[in-house]
Amino acid sequence: MREIFDAELKALGDDLQAMAHRVQHAIEAAGQALATADLALAERVIADDLAIDQLNRQLDEQCIHMLAQQQPVATDLRVIVSALRMSATLERMGDLARHIAEIARGRYPRQAVPQSLTGTFTEMDAAARRLAQRIVTLLESRDLALAEQIETDDDRLDDLHADSFTAMLGGGWTAGPQQTVDVTLLARFYERFGDHGVSIARRIVYLVTGDLSAGEPLHIQG
Amino acid sequence: MREIFDAELKALGDDLQAMAHRVQHAIEAAGQALATADLALAERVIADDLAIDQLNRQLDEQCIHMLAQQQPVATDLRVIVSALRMSATLERMGDLARHIAEIARGRYPRQAVPQSLTGTFTEMDAAARRLAQRIVTLLESRDLALAEQIETDDDRLDDLHADSFTAMLGGGWTAGPQQTVDVTLLARFYERFGDHGVSIARRIVYLVTGDLSAGEPLHIQG
Repeated sequence: MREIFDAELKALGDDLQAMAHRVQHAIEAAGQALATADLALAERVIADDLAIDQLNRQLDEQCIHMLAQQQPVATDLRVIVSALRMSATLERMGDLARHIAEIARGRYPRQAVPQSLTGTFTEMDAAARRLAQRIVTLLESRDLALAEQIETDDDRLDDLHADSFTAMLGGGWTAGPQQTVDVTLLARFYERFGDHGVSIARRIVYLVTGDLSAGEPLHIQG
Repeated sequence: MREIFDAELKALGDDLQAMAHRVQHAIEAAGQALATADLALAERVIADDLAIDQLNRQLDEQCIHMLAQQQPVATDLRVIVSALRMSATLERMGDLARHIAEIARGRYPRQAVPQSLTGTFTEMDAAARRLAQRIVTLLESRDLALAEQIETDDDRLDDLHADSFTAMLGGGWTAGPQQTVDVTLLARFYERFGDHGVSIARRIVYLVTGDLSAGEPLHIQG
């Protein structure tokens, strides 16, 4: 019985890592589609999000199956409930990547981001990629140093989000309403990658250390 | 044992209803603070969101306690896992109400919404209020006719969201970047109330009917 359960727990961890990998790929591809106005790539991100949603559903079903069949307690229960939540968080990160790709697709063949903010969005993209890579590695390694670095990535995304608002509201903004709308939403989507990444990082810290305060729900920007 | 569990299930349902009530109140107050540029009311919505977050944490702990102590299967397990998720959804709806209040506070003593869109936002507020009221009643009554009406509210919010974008991008928009940013975010927050409401409605349909397709995760706007 315990052996079956251990195998299921291992499979659950593997599925979560596979999902994180796909989300990482979606974030990278969405960023590239946005930066280069690549319509085909944007379309691919949008289509591939269905697979992430499907993984989320499978993971949910697997968690509920394990709760029902194995009736886990203590640490095992904590692992499964955390997997349920991390899967939901990864699914939302996939949605955000899709939303970025949808904006890139909507503006094609133009660039969605005005030239004056290209540098800010290049940095956002870089921070989101770092964060996504660290989530993948953290899920594999449980190396808590990565959790701290994810908090740093989130801080950076918050700063860049604020920078984009300063650029729009600081007085010298000459772009039209479409670009203002796009920058507002894009900056928000990037900022939320950070919140979701931190949510996953804190959940892993909680799983490893049992420190409840680390697992407290954040004020995720809704 | 079963009696204890039934009492715990009842308490779980009561807590979820209490949380939905608070979220309903937050949505109403945020809408009023926005419409009337009421600083004190906006501050109250922002402060009260902490209590919603706290309810979410308590509900989570209660669910995990019940999973560990009672090792439920079948319908009971479904009820508890659904409560975990509905609680998370309500928590995010509370965050959205807080974000609306934050924008109202940030623009005080001015109105955040330009006059040309007052009508659209009045309708958004009305649709969000209807939806919030229906969620509260649905959680109490399990009357599935309400679930359908919540889908209608969501459609209305989607339409109004689109209307606000048409107004900004249709050519006659003369408002400055700050108002464009605010309208973009506010319209998005209202639109997401609809997505979250539908998520809760479908989960209740799933609990009542066992129809899995009704419980499929939506493409929640991330």
